[in-house]
Amino acid sequence: MKKIKIAILGMGTVGGGTYDILTKNRDVIVERTGTDYEIAKILEKDARQIAKHDADISIVTTDVDSILESDDIDIIVEALGGMDFPVSIMSRALKRGISVVTPNKAAVAANYDMLRKAAEEGGAELRFEAAVGGGIPILTTIKEQLAGNRFTDIKGILNGTTNYILTNMLKKGQKYEDALESAKENGFAEPDPTADVEGIDCANKLCLLMVLAMDKYVNPQSIPTKGITEVTMEDIQHAYNKGCVIKLIAHAKKTESGYEYYVRPEEIPLDHPLASVSNEFNAIYLDGDAVGELMFYGKGAGALPTGSAIVGDIIAIMKDKQK
Amino acid sequence: MKKIKIAILGMGTVGGGTYDILTKNRDVIVERTGTDYEIAKILEKDARQIAKHDADISIVTTDVDSILESDDIDIIVEALGGMDFPVSIMSRALKRGISVVTPNKAAVAANYDMLRKAAEEGGAELRFEAAVGGGIPILTTIKEQLAGNRFTDIKGILNGTTNYILTNMLKKGQKYEDALESAKENGFAEPDPTADVEGIDCANKLCLLMVLAMDKYVNPQSIPTKGITEVTMEDIQHAYNKGCVIKLIAHAKKTESGYEYYVRPEEIPLDHPLASVSNEFNAIYLDGDAVGELMFYGKGAGALPTGSAIVGDIIAIMKDKQK
Repeated sequence: MKKIKIAILGMGTVGGGTYDILTKNRDVIVERTGTDYEIAKILEKDARQIAKHDADISIVTTDVDSILESDDIDIIVEALGGMDFPVSIMSRALKRGISVVTPNKAAVAANYDMLRKAAEEGGAELRFEAAVGGGIPILTTIKEQLAGNRFTDIKGILNGTTNYILTNMLKKGQKYEDALESAKENGFAEPDPTADVEGIDCANKLCLLMVLAMDKYVNPQSIPTKGITEVTMEDIQHAYNKGCVIKLIAHAKKTESGYEYYVRPEEIPLDHPLASVSNEFNAIYLDGDAVGELMFYGKGAGALPTGSAIVGDIIAIMKDKQK
Repeated sequence: MKKIKIAILGMGTVGGGTYDILTKNRDVIVERTGTDYEIAKILEKDARQIAKHDADISIVTTDVDSILESDDIDIIVEALGGMDFPVSIMSRALKRGISVVTPNKAAVAANYDMLRKAAEEGGAELRFEAAVGGGIPILTTIKEQLAGNRFTDIKGILNGTTNYILTNMLKKGQKYEDALESAKENGFAEPDPTADVEGIDCANKLCLLMVLAMDKYVNPQSIPTKGITEVTMEDIQHAYNKGCVIKLIAHAKKTESGYEYYVRPEEIPLDHPLASVSNEFNAIYLDGDAVGELMFYGKGAGALPTGSAIVGDIIAIMKDKQK
């Protein structure tokens, strides 16, 4: 049996979480897939990240070419973040027949067609399950188990930072600024939270959901997007008095006349399944013509949840390579 | 490209729903899978079921052997229900290399090992996504996208009939007997509701969840099972006063000392994701060591939701046959 060789590019939060799962749950993964694997290379400049995960220093490199030009790597996990550099790496790898797994929603959403073509050209797989719901298995599920459905309505709470802030505004009566500070203190917001609070992160994720569930690509910059920075305590109280909670909603709808899509704060009735999704949790609500209403709920971010989705993609590629 | 030939055994609710999806969503299914297919045979005695779905009478037969002994059938959908007859059909088909898709939880749960061995012997696939959550994609998701996790805790509301009854007892103040009658009138309970209200249906589903998520087979008859027939209005009121709702819960837990499992009515705190699962809806709540808390919510029964899961299994088999 061929041993699959994996390279992890970037040992930050997500790369490190992926490393930990591949290492600690090696026995169940090998048993369930019938495939052996090894982490053959790690791209990382910072020795502390290697030490933190007790990884073998002999497989660490700072030279990305030594990975991309190797004939020995089957799968790379792109966990570098950013835009131009990871996009060029992914494109090069795919064209050479190296499959790519990434949680990088911004990079994939903005370059979807180009990356798909690179994958086709190289006969490689591009997978990005972690890019939309973090740990929530949604993209592959839409493409595979739910592929018999036409989806006409997708509504998601796709960003944990903003959901944490809105939950604290409602439950603790904190003002937006205070709730944002508390999110930063608790590790649920970045030092620069712009992409989250302005809804940009949600627009990237909605782009990927639409292309997979509705076969319709819309550039994320063309999705009307409004974040939560102007949501006031009065808005929240006003909604609550009507039996609603305010959530940052990414919504896509297919109608007779075309597609409607946007990201914006919306009032959700308390008896809707999305209303009870609180704190840093995410959820995706779908309506398919066969399956009816569905909702998937879980952790949209974090080292291990995101790593779980990446490992799921690695497993899918390993199974495909077996056939 | 090889055209996949499908036989549907039984055109009742589930077989009919499967037929409708395969017919109406043919274009998206062919496009997404890159595989062409036809419904080549239907096993059905009742002409009204054929007429209802406007199916081609020339492919209908009442002779199961003509299907099982054909060299021309790739996949059978076993939607007959019952135990001995469908089990013998599934076993014969699998041994001959014909893949089987079924929603028949009782048959698969009681004969899991035998059917798996028949599938191995014939080099065929046995899939039963519809057997646990109806339309909710859970089994394949556990086996594939979530295969990097060790699951230590599974809790499900796995039966729509009992959840409908308990919801009406709470929300409409109906007694058990009245809520059961109302469930029958609205098509959410069978004329003989024993398997549902006594928890037997849940025990079969828990058996299948455990074997896939925890790699542990327990015969459903060995799962301690208590249904909802003794739940009183006082129990429901008492729970509510404590901030809880009563749900029929199927629970499996892996501990240091082994496995715990049961089906029984339990008090669920109102802030738990399972508490807001009402009426005929089902949900499965999981805790994986990587992904953390996850919940899947949707319709656990009905022609089209169940058909959606069956079609998802058919699509998976078609994709595997392509490789």
